[in-house]
Amino acid sequence: MHELAQRILTGDPRAVARACRLIDERSPDAEALLRALFQKTGRARVIGVTGAPGSGKSTLTDGLVARARARGERVGVLAIDPSSPFTGGALLGDRIRMQRHAADDEVFIRSFGTRGAHGGLARSTTACVQVLDVWGARTIFIETVGVGQVEVDVLDVAETVVVVVVPGMGDDVQANKAGILEIADVFALNKADHAGAERAERELAAALALGRAPVKLAGGHHHSAAPAATPEDTPRIVRTVATREEGLDALLAAIDEHGIWLRTTEPGAERRIARRRASASRQLSELVTARVLDELTPRLAELAARVGEAEIDPHTASEQMLAELREKRRS
Amino acid sequence: MHELAQRILTGDPRAVARACRLIDERSPDAEALLRALFQKTGRARVIGVTGAPGSGKSTLTDGLVARARARGERVGVLAIDPSSPFTGGALLGDRIRMQRHAADDEVFIRSFGTRGAHGGLARSTTACVQVLDVWGARTIFIETVGVGQVEVDVLDVAETVVVVVVPGMGDDVQANKAGILEIADVFALNKADHAGAERAERELAAALALGRAPVKLAGGHHHSAAPAATPEDTPRIVRTVATREEGLDALLAAIDEHGIWLRTTEPGAERRIARRRASASRQLSELVTARVLDELTPRLAELAARVGEAEIDPHTASEQMLAELREKRRS
Repeated sequence: MHELAQRILTGDPRAVARACRLIDERSPDAEALLRALFQKTGRARVIGVTGAPGSGKSTLTDGLVARARARGERVGVLAIDPSSPFTGGALLGDRIRMQRHAADDEVFIRSFGTRGAHGGLARSTTACVQVLDVWGARTIFIETVGVGQVEVDVLDVAETVVVVVVPGMGDDVQANKAGILEIADVFALNKADHAGAERAERELAAALALGRAPVKLAGGHHHSAAPAATPEDTPRIVRTVATREEGLDALLAAIDEHGIWLRTTEPGAERRIARRRASASRQLSELVTARVLDELTPRLAELAARVGEAEIDPHTASEQMLAELREKRRS
Repeated sequence: MHELAQRILTGDPRAVARACRLIDERSPDAEALLRALFQKTGRARVIGVTGAPGSGKSTLTDGLVARARARGERVGVLAIDPSSPFTGGALLGDRIRMQRHAADDEVFIRSFGTRGAHGGLARSTTACVQVLDVWGARTIFIETVGVGQVEVDVLDVAETVVVVVVPGMGDDVQANKAGILEIADVFALNKADHAGAERAERELAAALALGRAPVKLAGGHHHSAAPAATPEDTPRIVRTVATREEGLDALLAAIDEHGIWLRTTEPGAERRIARRRASASRQLSELVTARVLDELTPRLAELAARVGEAEIDPHTASEQMLAELREKRRS
């Protein structure tokens, strides 16, 4: 395993692929590897890109990857694909993503399906971020659909979150505005050549001016330790047309600017600490519950069948499992 | 608490509201109540309605509620709203939903926000389904956005799942077809008056004919114990225009037909058992992990801060927590 850590440190992309597979499979080797790598992490910048289905976030991420590469950076991309509820596989494979970077050894791309990743997706993503970090990725993009609890949780590990919006979104998406406002560090108003871009930007700016500070004061997850909004940390809105690669330099500049804010200001530092803690907290919860569930798996199936037949109520069954867990630990 | 159980049994909607609040708050009273109610559950029919944002599933559910009421049924509606990642609240409140049923004491409507409901959403939903069941709801609708792991998981408890699709969906949604095909018992092709309805139905039917059986054979979650697809259980496609209440009678008939299939055929019975077990299994996992995390909460914040500062790696920290849990149990 130390050999694999060594290979990652020397920049071997196949070693990264192997490490991510071990992480996915929850191999004990992965744990040993991550322990070995942990002290060498912390150099990469993690950028989250999220938006509704159809907002063009994949194309946008693709363009950002090209620009980061043009600056000579080594780049990692972790794409979260909401997967088939029953097959467990990712729907958009690595192969059809970002084909233009496929031959580039300095770009590592990986897709994660979300099915079956109960409380495990954020953990796997965080672990792969650490591997890519040690591999030498300067920038790591996490692309995820902005709908769904599990899919949004992975953004915990990002220092800057880009929310992709498009003009004329449907009612449901509009209704989601409060959530979008809270999570965004930078907005990409994509498909800015479509009708209604002007109006969408105006509405977004107005919502930001009105909504951000009070929502923050309400106290939330990531921002709970952060101060109230100041003009400096109000998210910038950048117009893009990802399919024509328009606005991407400006978008990257806005991302960089946010990174500088995080590193050079007091509220920025507080934000970083709060996010790091939130991410660590989730990672710890996931590790602990995964371990407990692993121990319980065989008994779970048995008791679930009995609950399904209404022979026993779920609360009694869960207490029985906890009692057995306790006994096991004692022995 | 037995008094509350009594009030639910006599059909008091305010008692249902109070029970759901207790469940949300994870009150110990809720547990006692659910134990008391458990033996009286199992009479309601639970229908899941899911689809992408903007597919019109709320309007469709609203129409189905009206039809169920017209048949004289008592009805429950549990709406899962992807919520703001930071405020924790539901975005579409009960108030703006289904206002026409607001004054009807025979309709109970409740919204659930998904944020902060790690492994807790399906549990809360299942518990509220049980309360509504005992309250006397003949049909319970669970409406949820069909994107996102947590949001889809709640459908475990449904016996029939209606997937709402619309003509001309975006690429991302099309890519999600495999997942949609697997989860659907009935399709509502909504906005069927829009251009491309014809084509969308043709494509969907073709995908069903081709895709369903092999995907099933790949072995999945809900259907793992079910036999391969037969012509009888291939999902029906019903065209609807929810805003004009067109096609809703046909949709309800298709839902009823699926219920009859479940109750009168061998593969239907197998499907029901498999679903009940899957739902019970998830419920048990959630109860057990929630209990374990409750015990660990104070220590978690402390260790997360240390992991955030890179003083300790997450695996060592999680082992420390598990060891402490063990000690605590011993004492």
